[in-house]
Order: sequence, then C-alpha cells, then structure tokens
Amino acid sequence: MHNPQLAANGQLTHLLTLEGLPAPVITHILDSATPFVSFGERDVKKVPLLRGKAVFNLFFENSTRTRTTFEIAAKRLSADVINLNIGASSTAKGESVLDTIDNLTAMDADIFVVRHSESGAAHLIASHLNATGRSHVHVVNAGDGRHQHPTQGLLDLYTIRHYKKAFTALSVAVVGDVLHSRVARSLISGLTTLGTPDVRVVGPQTLIPTAVESLGVRVCHDMREGVAGCDVVVMLRLQNERMKGALLPSTGEYFQYYGLTPDKLALAKPDAIVMHPGPMNRGVEIDSAVADGARAVILPQVTFGIAVRMAVMSLIAGNG
Amino acid sequence: MHNPQLAANGQLTHLLTLEGLPAPVITHILDSATPFVSFGERDVKKVPLLRGKAVFNLFFENSTRTRTTFEIAAKRLSADVINLNIGASSTAKGESVLDTIDNLTAMDADIFVVRHSESGAAHLIASHLNATGRSHVHVVNAGDGRHQHPTQGLLDLYTIRHYKKAFTALSVAVVGDVLHSRVARSLISGLTTLGTPDVRVVGPQTLIPTAVESLGVRVCHDMREGVAGCDVVVMLRLQNERMKGALLPSTGEYFQYYGLTPDKLALAKPDAIVMHPGPMNRGVEIDSAVADGARAVILPQVTFGIAVRMAVMSLIAGNG
Amino acid sequence: MHNPQLAANGQLTHLLTLEGLPAPVITHILDSATPFVSFGERDVKKVPLLRGKAVFNLFFENSTRTRTTFEIAAKRLSADVINLNIGASSTAKGESVLDTIDNLTAMDADIFVVRHSESGAAHLIASHLNATGRSHVHVVNAGDGRHQHPTQGLLDLYTIRHYKKAFTALSVAVVGDVLHSRVARSLISGLTTLGTPDVRVVGPQTLIPTAVESLGVRVCHDMREGVAGCDVVVMLRLQNERMKGALLPSTGEYFQYYGLTPDKLALAKPDAIVMHPGPMNRGVEIDSAVADGARAVILPQVTFGIAVRMAVMSLIAGNG
Repeated sequence: MHNPQLAANGQLTHLLTLEGLPAPVITHILDSATPFVSFGERDVKKVPLLRGKAVFNLFFENSTRTRTTFEIAAKRLSADVINLNIGASSTAKGESVLDTIDNLTAMDADIFVVRHSESGAAHLIASHLNATGRSHVHVVNAGDGRHQHPTQGLLDLYTIRHYKKAFTALSVAVVGDVLHSRVARSLISGLTTLGTPDVRVVGPQTLIPTAVESLGVRVCHDMREGVAGCDVVVMLRLQNERMKGALLPSTGEYFQYYGLTPDKLALAKPDAIVMHPGPMNRGVEIDSAVADGARAVILPQVTFGIAVRMAVMSLIAGNG
Repeated sequence: MHNPQLAANGQLTHLLTLEGLPAPVITHILDSATPFVSFGERDVKKVPLLRGKAVFNLFFENSTRTRTTFEIAAKRLSADVINLNIGASSTAKGESVLDTIDNLTAMDADIFVVRHSESGAAHLIASHLNATGRSHVHVVNAGDGRHQHPTQGLLDLYTIRHYKKAFTALSVAVVGDVLHSRVARSLISGLTTLGTPDVRVVGPQTLIPTAVESLGVRVCHDMREGVAGCDVVVMLRLQNERMKGALLPSTGEYFQYYGLTPDKLALAKPDAIVMHPGPMNRGVEIDSAVADGARAVILPQVTFGIAVRMAVMSLIAGNG
Repeated sequence: MHNPQLAANGQLTHLLTLEGLPAPVITHILDSATPFVSFGERDVKKVPLLRGKAVFNLFFENSTRTRTTFEIAAKRLSADVINLNIGASSTAKGESVLDTIDNLTAMDADIFVVRHSESGAAHLIASHLNATGRSHVHVVNAGDGRHQHPTQGLLDLYTIRHYKKAFTALSVAVVGDVLHSRVARSLISGLTTLGTPDVRVVGPQTLIPTAVESLGVRVCHDMREGVAGCDVVVMLRLQNERMKGALLPSTGEYFQYYGLTPDKLALAKPDAIVMHPGPMNRGVEIDSAVADGARAVILPQVTFGIAVRMAVMSLIAGNG
C-alpha cells in the first residue's frame, strides 16, 4: 500500500507515524532540525519560512503542553496559529470530523496539527485530503489514541543522536507503561528503522503489549536486567488512571520495582542518558535524584522538540 | 431614525444588520471582497491593512466556528487578535456589558466582533460607542440572539452573486427553521434590498415566523412546491434542541418532509445551487448525496465568508 | 537579603512586588511608560522591542481581564504570546509548578507573566530561575494570592502622578476591602516609597488588616472622615463572596457606609480624582453618578495600565 504520508516523489507531505517511514526521511528531518536548535538563543527567534501560512491546532483531546510546543514552533516560523479545542465545539454539534476538516480547509488552512483520542484519526484526515485533491494541505499527528506520537518519537531520536551519535551500536531501554504509550510505539518504530541493535521494553506484564517482540524488541520484566549496560534509559509517564484499575498494585510498589532510582541507573553504562517525555511523576516512575541529576536530558528533549516540530512543519509545507 | 451603522457621510462604520442597509453599501462590501477571494491561494496570505490594529473577538455566547472565521480574517489583515470568552469572565463578576466595552475601549480596541445570545446586543454597544464620541471604534455583529448574523448574510449574497449574477431575476428558497434563524433573517433582508423578485420561506408552520410575508417573502409549507423552479436553495441548520420541545415530531419525519434529497432538488432549476451555513446535520435537513453533490456550494460559502469578513473589517476600520 | 527582582547591577529583572522596590526604579518604570501612553492613538500600534521574544501568560488562576492587558501589551511590543491556563492542564496531571517552569523555559520562554492563587508563587519561580542560572528569563507577577499585584500598583501610581504631579504633598484614601486586596497592598507600598505623606485605609474593621499601621498608613473606620480633604480616592472592588461569609452584613448596608456617593466625594478636595481597579460593582462600592462622573479616572487607569505593562516588559527583557 502507498504510504499516505509521502508524496509521489517520496517527500514528506504529512507526518502521521514513524512506522514505515524510511530511514533517509527520518534522518533528513533530524538534520533539518539542527539549525533550529540554537535558534532559541537568538535575540529574534523568528524566521519567515511559514509567513502567511495558517496552522490549525485541532485538539479533539485536550493537551495544553503538546499544543504549546506546536504553537511556539509555528509562531517561530512566522505562521498564523489558530487553536481549536474541537471537543468543546463542532463535534458537540454533531458534525463529523471530516466535515470539520472540509470546512477549515475551505478557510485555506495549510497545516492541521491533530490530536485525537482515536487511533488513526490523523491518517483518516490525511487520506481524505489526499483523496479529494487537496494535497497542498498537510497533517501532523500530535498523538492519536494509543497509536503514535511521531513528533515525540522524532525528538527522542534527535536527543539520542545528539548525545550518542550512531544508532547502530546502542542499547536502549524503554521502561514503564508501554501498553498505553504512543510515545513508546513511535520511538520503537524509529529506533528499529535507524538500525538500533538492542531495544528493550521493561515493565510489569500487565503494561507490556502481547507480541511486542514482533516489533524487534526484547521484553524484560525485571528492571535491573532491563537497564543493565544500556546507553539510553527512556522512562514513560505512568498515567494515574492505571492505578485505579486492576493493572497495578500501588504507586509505592510500582516505584520500588520500576521507578528509576540512582542505584538502578548505576547498572546502566556510566555515560547512559535518562529521558522522559514529561510531565514527570516524581517518586512514581522516576526518583528526583535522577530527574534532576547530571545524566537526565529531559529538558534538552523539550528544546529539541521545538526544533524538530519547526523542521517537520517547514519540510511538509515546503513540499507542496 | 439615523442608521447607527453608517457614518454621517454614509459610509459603513459598524456592521450590525442587513436590515435597512442600502443596496449600494451591500454591493460595495461584496465588490470589496472579491480581491480577497483568491487571496487564500497566495503563498503569503497576508496584507498589512489592519497592521497594528486590535480586533477583539467578544463572544458572550460560545461559537468556535464563527470566532475562527473572524480570527483568520483579522490575522490575514495583519491585525492583533484578542479572543475573549466573556461568558466565562467579567459578566460572571457582575460587570455590565457596557462597562466591559468601556474597559476594552480604554485598552485601545479598534474593532469589536460581538456574539451575544440577546438580540440587539451589538446595536447597544455600537450606539454606546457612537453616543460617547468613540466613533473610531467599530462593531461587527457576529450573531445576536434570533435577530441577525450579517456577515453570514453577506457571504450568502456573495455566493449567490458569484454563481448566479443578477439578483433581479432570481428565485431563492430558504428552507427549514426560519423562526429561530438569524441567518435566514439576514439573508432575506439582503435579498429583498438587492431586488430579488422571488424569495420563498419553506418549512412547517411551527418553524415559520408569523407575518413573515411582511418581509416580502412567500411562505410554502410544502417543500416540493417551495423548491420548484428555484435558482438557489438555502438549507438551514435544524437545532437539535428544537426536537426536544413540542415544535417538531421527529428527526426522521422532518427529513422526510423538509430534508433536501436528490429527488426534491430535481424540482429546482437544473443549474440550481444548494447552500447551507454549516455545520450540517446530514440526514436531518440535508441528504449526503446533495451535500457532497455537484450542485452544493457549501464549501465555497466558507471561503467567501473569510473574504467577506476581511472586506467588512478593512472597510469599517478605513472609515475612521 | 538580596532583592530577587533586581539584577546585580540594580536593574529590574523581574517584577514581583512593589514592596522594597527602590523609588528610582519605580520612577524609571513610570517614566518609561509615558511614550507608550499616546501609543494607542497611533495608526500602527506596534513597536518591535520584543520581536521574536516569547511571552507566556501562565494563569494558574483564571483572570481574563488581567490576561488581556498583558496580551495586548506584549503584542504591541511585537512579542509572540502564548496563553496557558495551567489550572486546567499540567497541575491537574500532578506536575509541580517548578517542573512546568523548567519545561517552558526549555522551550525558550523569555517572560513569564504569572497569576497564582498562592502568595509568593511568582517569587518562587523567579528565585528558581535565578538559582539555576537562567537569569535571562523574566517573571512578572500578575497577582499572587492576597499578596501583591505590582503592575496594578504601578498603573495606579502612574495615574496619580499624571493627575496630581508630586506625591510628596498628597492625601490618598484607599477604601474598602483592604484585607483581601493585593491591589491595595501594592499601591500602599508604592505610595509610601514615593514619599506620600498621608495614606489612609478606610473600611469596616473586618476588612482592614490588623497592624496595617506598620505600613505607614492611617486607619479610618468612618468613611466621611477617611475621604475628607483627600486628593485621591481609590475604591476597591468588593468581592461578592465576602458577603456570603460573616465579614459583612449586606450589600445595601455596605453601600450606605462605604459606597462612594456624590455627597461623600464632596468631602474630598474639589479636584480630587476617583480611581477603581475594575471590574466595578455599581451600587455596592461605588455609585454610578461617581463612576461616570467628571472626577472618575477609572478608564484612563486602564489605558495607563497597558502602557505600564509595555514599559515593565520592555525594561526587564532589555536587562539581560
């Protein structure tokens, strides 16, 4: 099947998922982000790459943090940004998502940044635009259900490459609630595409998807074994609501077994880096001594995230 | 009585209603919108006509869609846009609408785009500004109660003129919940002012205002008779809440009698166009085969709507 | 103790409180606001002083009005403005305020405008930024609990100076709910620092803080005595919720004793001005005849408030 996120000439036109995205495309995005990284230190943090373009933040599911990162990235590219909390408006009036999209496209939207609680929502929108001859309108998936969160995956890859250079010699542990994590799914796709030889997913059986090995990863239920000798430890946020169900015993017990503490981190390589997509639950999945320690690169991840989103939006809007 | 939306020299200074707005003023707005229509196809969709001006979207009643159209139009004119959901703030603190207006005027607002659930709210604000010597501040009515929604009326007129040219030979059917529709009221005002000889309102007795004939329209309770031989069919949105009251039997029955289906549309002229202000209730007032068919101009309406709002705001702000 | 809002060279780097802010710094801010006052009358109300800078309106407590004033001020300085209603997002996810700040700082925020229901929140954030070597990021306190609201205090000072010139010969009465008012606290700090010889706080015993005399003010429980011979009468907003508690008998009785009516105002100097931070409760703390009368300078306060906020933001962002 044709990959709906690539134009006929192979260039990126939507960013929907890291699954199936060719390695050269991923590498090109990461390379394109580099000039934007130092950008935040400039006095005037603006380039006119998207001047006069309209970026619509279409959030069918609320996420102030993610919306903010896209809003900043788009404004630094000089775009006009329109924030739409769609949950609270049109869908409540019974209009379908695709009617909403058609309507906003008729207002001459250039980029839709889409967050939705349903897996596949961004794909659906992109396919609809492609099928109706509006390939000059672009979609960026900002998280769809449990499926993918590709800009988060890309910023994670950028961070790893920044600190560790070649992916082809790395051990990466992804720890925690892999089952519900679109962040994990995007990162794992990207890591395997870029040739990372050793990717481990670490967590209790209830939080690891069945048959996850088919993605090319190794499962560890023991955290000490999981982080041993790693170059990169990626901690996932534990959603509080998991605690309310039957999936987990208690926050305290979770921390004891799967929280990243200095002594567990000591089992990784001496120069291992620690990542987290934020917001952190200190004392649940990560100890403050680690979160604030020298090996955490959690705040650089945020900075790289703005640059990666600037790169993605300028690339897709530059590709017709 | 002096028309509060015209300056002493006859130029538009507020846009409050299409009722009583002279034909040359309406035509001038429509003419002014034309250059903005192709605007969305440009690479840089911005002109500096309102640069440094402040447009306040004052929404006392929530409407993400309408707010978005004004926000885009204002940003394309390079204005600074401030969105205020007033329902949730000052009025809750017991401040009067006019105190809120005085306060925001003291912040050097240039244009207020006002949406309010009470008929006459925009008039009240405009009269207050006129009476207190602040005629350099302008009001655009973005919907007041059941009264008027003049920019919607103007975009409807623009659409009709675009596809049908002269109003003086047209038959236009306005179908559905005319009673509660400010959209219908604005459109009917405009159509009669521009000399449309045959305007019909079509719907069940419970949804047609009494004495509507005084507006110069013909009432049809039978939809087939209503659309027969028409050049333009304007379908109105059926508010779901009408169903809950005693006004209508059921959605299914409504669709049967007043929903626009291909077979009912076949009674209109072969080149008749179908319009709808959105958001549509597919299967309630309109059949998907019609909504997505070749004669629907529902999405062009949206595009023209941005252009018309750009025209209105640049005209009023250019008139002192 | 070092004043955390001043840089080592004595220049303003955060604006947290008027308490302890040296008179020359206050005067410098007021002087810097003057060129911005006439700014609103210009055709293009924009200067590029903060072009490419990112101003984050961090509202942990909702306040549309205050947020709007900062949003307008920042946009007139050409900054990119990001509005974050944090109450509704990250804190709900269990993230600490300082983690939120670190995160947003990693997105290259330049100025945080902070509103919080807890006294000291803005201080905490500023101290954290100072302590972690990020003194290029600036904080403006937009109201913290019952503590301070320094930009309101500054605009009050600006207004008084505008109409009355020298502070050193003035009598100022601050009337109403002083106990819960950060506005009063900020203004009193500023007035005493600038050498105002006669500051009176006027209100019922339940609404006057104990030991308020230590701030250098005189307490009057009788309003007629309190306003007698004053140059300036500052009326405070009476929070409706005070009525629900045991603090006050009734709105009517409050108005009788402490509402500013023409006859009570007649006891002040003939050229006395009347101020109010807004939003007003007409008929509770102020009579409409006074609010709309010739001596009220309530709307000029608003205009000056935009100018003062422009001055504060351009000063701090210009100081590294």
